[in-house]
Amino acid sequence: MQTVAKTPAPPYYAVIFTSVRTDGDNGYGEAAARMLESASKQNGFLGFETARQEIGISVSYWSSTEAIKAWKENAEHRETQKKAKGWYSSFRVRVCRVEKDYGF
Amino acid sequence: MQTVAKTPAPPYYAVIFTSVRTDGDNGYGEAAARMLESASKQNGFLGFETARQEIGISVSYWSSTEAIKAWKENAEHRETQKKAKGWYSSFRVRVCRVEKDYGF
Repeated sequence: MQTVAKTPAPPYYAVIFTSVRTDGDNGYGEAAARMLESASKQNGFLGFETARQEIGISVSYWSSTEAIKAWKENAEHRETQKKAKGWYSSFRVRVCRVEKDYGF
Repeated sequence: MQTVAKTPAPPYYAVIFTSVRTDGDNGYGEAAARMLESASKQNGFLGFETARQEIGISVSYWSSTEAIKAWKENAEHRETQKKAKGWYSSFRVRVCRVEKDYGF
């Protein structure tokens, strides 16, 4: 069961990945699970949230831009990124600095 | 039909709202639609993306932190915020500066 990610006090970083899927799985489900497992082992990984209806939104949280860059350049992740054009009809990646947060 | 939000070149701002809903609608659906309509008329509103499965993730995009503050303090929005404890078992609001983006 997913929950709201338990992140530390700001500042930290978020990568917002918004996408529209193509039809069919095409190996996506397995690759997504493997990428989350791999990301969560990276230095500086803080948490992950995801949901999909008409569009998908996945947010990963990181301690620094260096940690984000290291994950982007991870060899297995790079191989998987090459498949993006088969899985998504469009996507956008937004790298953000989280400046404040609140909630309950 | 939702699409990936068409945002301008960074920097701009994102508010990531992650939540777990309580059972039942309790007026949520109507209020959510009304708040999106109202937000989209605010100065500095750039776009909106939302999806919900186990958790909900809604991201609104803004031109400045002043625009975010003005929306947070909007009278109708403040009234609606008071109902949050009935709609959500937990939520987190994260205010972010989008530093770069890419995609197709």
